[in-house]
Amino acid sequence: MNAPAKPTPRAEGSASQEAVLLVALKCFVEQGFHGTSMRDIAGAAGSSIAAIYYHFPSKAALLRAIMTRVTEDLLAVLQQAKRDLPRKDDAASLLAALVRAYVRFHTERREEAFVGNSELRSLEADDLAHVIGLRDKVSAQFNDAIATGLKRGVFTCEHPREAGLAVMTMCTAVANWYRPGGPATPEQIADRYAGLALSMLRAK
Amino acid sequence: MNAPAKPTPRAEGSASQEAVLLVALKCFVEQGFHGTSMRDIAGAAGSSIAAIYYHFPSKAALLRAIMTRVTEDLLAVLQQAKRDLPRKDDAASLLAALVRAYVRFHTERREEAFVGNSELRSLEADDLAHVIGLRDKVSAQFNDAIATGLKRGVFTCEHPREAGLAVMTMCTAVANWYRPGGPATPEQIADRYAGLALSMLRAK
Repeated sequence: MNAPAKPTPRAEGSASQEAVLLVALKCFVEQGFHGTSMRDIAGAAGSSIAAIYYHFPSKAALLRAIMTRVTEDLLAVLQQAKRDLPRKDDAASLLAALVRAYVRFHTERREEAFVGNSELRSLEADDLAHVIGLRDKVSAQFNDAIATGLKRGVFTCEHPREAGLAVMTMCTAVANWYRPGGPATPEQIADRYAGLALSMLRAK
Repeated sequence: MNAPAKPTPRAEGSASQEAVLLVALKCFVEQGFHGTSMRDIAGAAGSSIAAIYYHFPSKAALLRAIMTRVTEDLLAVLQQAKRDLPRKDDAASLLAALVRAYVRFHTERREEAFVGNSELRSLEADDLAHVIGLRDKVSAQFNDAIATGLKRGVFTCEHPREAGLAVMTMCTAVANWYRPGGPATPEQIADRYAGLALSMLRAK
């Protein structure tokens, strides 16, 4: 399955609500959450401030919507990659599939990944707890695959906690350095990273 | 050699200049560069705006000083790690030493690493070129060690570009998740990451 190129539209969202979210994302990428005002977002969207507030009650609500959605979409992509596996009990194939899906996602959703990593500080307490809860579910996908592989003797890594962190963070960072038209395609990077992750876990 | 816990004082810098830099760093971490004004920095430092301008002509100069220094210090730490090696021609030991030094540095300089990664967007063009030049020198340390290891048959990785990116980015991200008092010490994390990097490169 391919990572969605755009955020998955939500049933309750209107087209203009989607447009506001995209404009807010662009502003946050360029100037940061604290450096962006609702007036800036309205200006970039070519609409009135009232129109922005019609869709989102606050700037915090915009950030919450962006960060919740990208993390939910990432989790969905990983769960789908798992469902698509012909053999669910093969830990090495599962880890490779998770890495591939995670890397492809991060080549597609680079702006949201940047905001997701730089603006955790700016989420309100409840929103932060919610996003961290979703992130824990993402981490669990990787950590469970690693734990299963270790238990079955497929992996022989001595430090699974650090290995899980290393795998996820190296894949997240693809969003920082990947540029369309670079020397490798998203598919190639995804395959190579899957190979690197399996080597790191000393997969048999 | 241990990574310096604090930014290396520069010969030309005064104590109060140092204090301003630390306060500006804290403001940028909390609110971002665009979300921070010189007035905010003065307020956080408990001094007048004029006193801030006495040391730094602009907010851009503060960001330049922070980002240049942390990258120069990182490069110096890697070069020192290389000099400290008993056998310079052992590519596996060299890569392990670079990873250890890089990880320790990122457990110590977490705030600067965060600003370094989130505020590249905010550097003026000349400053960005300068910082990227320094970063290229950092990358070259890793890429040269990997290339040497591959040439000598010590490593057997098929995709050295992606391996180099994966190693550096997983180590950089330690700054995001490491917290003092966590389950592993900086030394332990550094050693484990060195092992993970060597496994990833399938070191003999």
